[in-house]
Amino acid sequence: MKLKFKEIPGSIIAAQGFQASGVFCDIKRLGTGKGSNKGPKRDLALIVSETPATVAGMFTTNQVCAAPVKVCVERMKQGQAQVIVVNSGNANACTGKPGMADAREMVAFTERALNLPKGLALVGSTGRIGVTMPMDNIRAGIIEAATLLGSAVENADHAAEAIMTSDSRSKQIAIEFKLGGQTVRIGGICKGAGMIQPGMSATGARPAALPHGGLHATMLSFITTDAAIDAKVLQAALHEAVAHSFNRITVDGDMSTNDTVLVLANGLAGNKKFGVKSAEFKVFQTALNHVALELAKKIVRDGEGVHRVVTVRVNGAKTIQDADAAARAVANSALVKTSWHGGDPNWGRIIDAVGYSPATVVEAKIDIGYSANGSKKILWSLKRGQPTKATFKQLCAAVAPKEFELHINLNLGKANAVMYAADLTEAYVDYNKGDVTDPTTLGG
Amino acid sequence: MKLKFKEIPGSIIAAQGFQASGVFCDIKRLGTGKGSNKGPKRDLALIVSETPATVAGMFTTNQVCAAPVKVCVERMKQGQAQVIVVNSGNANACTGKPGMADAREMVAFTERALNLPKGLALVGSTGRIGVTMPMDNIRAGIIEAATLLGSAVENADHAAEAIMTSDSRSKQIAIEFKLGGQTVRIGGICKGAGMIQPGMSATGARPAALPHGGLHATMLSFITTDAAIDAKVLQAALHEAVAHSFNRITVDGDMSTNDTVLVLANGLAGNKKFGVKSAEFKVFQTALNHVALELAKKIVRDGEGVHRVVTVRVNGAKTIQDADAAARAVANSALVKTSWHGGDPNWGRIIDAVGYSPATVVEAKIDIGYSANGSKKILWSLKRGQPTKATFKQLCAAVAPKEFELHINLNLGKANAVMYAADLTEAYVDYNKGDVTDPTTLGG
Repeated sequence: MKLKFKEIPGSIIAAQGFQASGVFCDIKRLGTGKGSNKGPKRDLALIVSETPATVAGMFTTNQVCAAPVKVCVERMKQGQAQVIVVNSGNANACTGKPGMADAREMVAFTERALNLPKGLALVGSTGRIGVTMPMDNIRAGIIEAATLLGSAVENADHAAEAIMTSDSRSKQIAIEFKLGGQTVRIGGICKGAGMIQPGMSATGARPAALPHGGLHATMLSFITTDAAIDAKVLQAALHEAVAHSFNRITVDGDMSTNDTVLVLANGLAGNKKFGVKSAEFKVFQTALNHVALELAKKIVRDGEGVHRVVTVRVNGAKTIQDADAAARAVANSALVKTSWHGGDPNWGRIIDAVGYSPATVVEAKIDIGYSANGSKKILWSLKRGQPTKATFKQLCAAVAPKEFELHINLNLGKANAVMYAADLTEAYVDYNKGDVTDPTTLGG
Repeated sequence: MKLKFKEIPGSIIAAQGFQASGVFCDIKRLGTGKGSNKGPKRDLALIVSETPATVAGMFTTNQVCAAPVKVCVERMKQGQAQVIVVNSGNANACTGKPGMADAREMVAFTERALNLPKGLALVGSTGRIGVTMPMDNIRAGIIEAATLLGSAVENADHAAEAIMTSDSRSKQIAIEFKLGGQTVRIGGICKGAGMIQPGMSATGARPAALPHGGLHATMLSFITTDAAIDAKVLQAALHEAVAHSFNRITVDGDMSTNDTVLVLANGLAGNKKFGVKSAEFKVFQTALNHVALELAKKIVRDGEGVHRVVTVRVNGAKTIQDADAAARAVANSALVKTSWHGGDPNWGRIIDAVGYSPATVVEAKIDIGYSANGSKKILWSLKRGQPTKATFKQLCAAVAPKEFELHINLNLGKANAVMYAADLTEAYVDYNKGDVTDPTTLGG
């Protein structure tokens, strides 16, 4: 379904009835800066709806799972929430029982600070692993953030900044569209630059049948909408949107302990509620897909050290699992990713990765080609396992742009999969090796 | 079984009755150098036994499999061989029917050049993928190499050099030991520095039950021995040796189209043949394991851009598959590998990788620690999922050496696995991104 979306400013405060704020409360205990408008970047955000909202969420399937994720998963059952408190600088992961107590204290303290009934707050955290939360700073931050809530574009900017870690820029989008005669808005923010290959499910539980490649950042995304929608319908839409966006990206193949996507829908647009088989659902789904995919792509483009973004399209696989496995093998191959960095078409490394992937493939049937983003004109380097007459110069030109598409046709069936992937650069290595003289760059 | 091995010089010519040579025949068609002792490094080797030898082999399980591998797999059935011809500079992979014809021509031409009966030659290739073999150069190289065969240490050096690609140094070992009263020698050479995570089987076919992580270099290894041993017994010993050596290493997680290990056993030591349940077999197995593991470790230490080598030991898994999956997830995690490069203990990234691996794990049971190579004194950073009192300084000191061991205990069962892994450095990225102005650095 193709729909016309009007992009509007304000991301998470674009929809009616939402407010946000972002403050600095020194969660990394740098000991620098005081107050929200001085010193280093903001590190605590609040996102609040005027009224209790329908909620849906998707969470990391990593078996090592952070305390805030566990608290959110528990609270999803009630289908309602009104506020999300998010901090950067500390993931509250591998923090044991004290970590769980801290996550529960974060939601309880937020509810009290905003005079909300118990149970309506959710929590997200990102940052270092294995470090106890600095709860005095957190409480001070929540109190300050509560006083600064507002629905100006600047408020969304502050919240989007506060959830960043290694991100070089904040990531925001909002759109407006018609749903059942009413004007509805969906907006979102997200963060994530490394430890990025999310594999999220509604409960954080792994699917019974694992994808071949296993499941593999912290990425966080918070989406708000004024659509009126039931929790189950919203969860179905979010599941589908994440399957085609956040769960299709990889920067470095590492799945985080904290990956979280939450959607709040407060119903203030006044549309009539709809079921999953309605025409309205299709419209809503298409709009949510658009928001989720645009946010997910922003994560890859801003990935740590990333110079090139490549859309890997595998077609003609026997099964969806095979298509997915082949796409992930290519998207995560160190040799393929370094060749992208070098502007090297290197189909040899690509077919090698396809061949060792768990997908069933037949060398003599594999096609490999390149196109400009969104173009249907594919330059094939390999057809049925054999090099074409495309010249090396032509192939180099095809992979020179900052973004391009890689097409792999297995010619064995009808299943396909796509991955939004990144190159591997010296800058990635340099960033992630940290600096042993500065422990704040290390340890998680 | 602990045995005393005497290391001796000469690698593949150390055992009685073997000769070798290595020449330059310009397989990359650089157009420079003439003859075997001028210009760039050697690129074609011969390894010959005086008499027909028993043979065993293990081959890549990549579904995209090079022509020389296919020729060897076919010829394994006869259980006998007398010569191995090996070239670097061209992998003869993804070269279709002409590639198969070239591989067959290489063995047939070698047999004629040495006046051997048909069917006794084997072939190995490594280098660029998708480029037709320069057969005129190959034939000239084989003719020259045949005239230069000898059993001096220098001959082994030349052969070991001729099989190198991105290797910075040649890799050789030979040992001598007593077997049933006779003195027996096993020696070998190998190559490999990138595209290294072999998963080899005797037929190149993938096992029915894939390991969780899938199977994942070109590595080539050629081993010679003067032991008298039947082909089936030799194959059993090689299978076991490879399972604990070449199939346990990773540089970059990429499995090549050409991985090959071949053993020739010509029986000239005069020992009495033995079965797989004999005491002699245990001695032979232990010796072969030693040779294979020492060669495999040389590959990791000389891996592209490698600064640190880490032995990843997973203990206490529910199943061997789980232990293997957890060890491979950690050994191939971009974030873990960059932290090793930085001298950063970063157990947060390690437990994250364990958690997203397909292995069943329980966060609250996981122990993570570090030791010096071969030391039983482990410094634990994490016990039962929680940070210990080890200081950051102590942990940094534990991961500072060029080689160390990482211990992960899942505390769920009795299965264990080990991987010999490498860090990920800017030098790896720089080498593998190639140079688009010099196509010989690109394309496979």
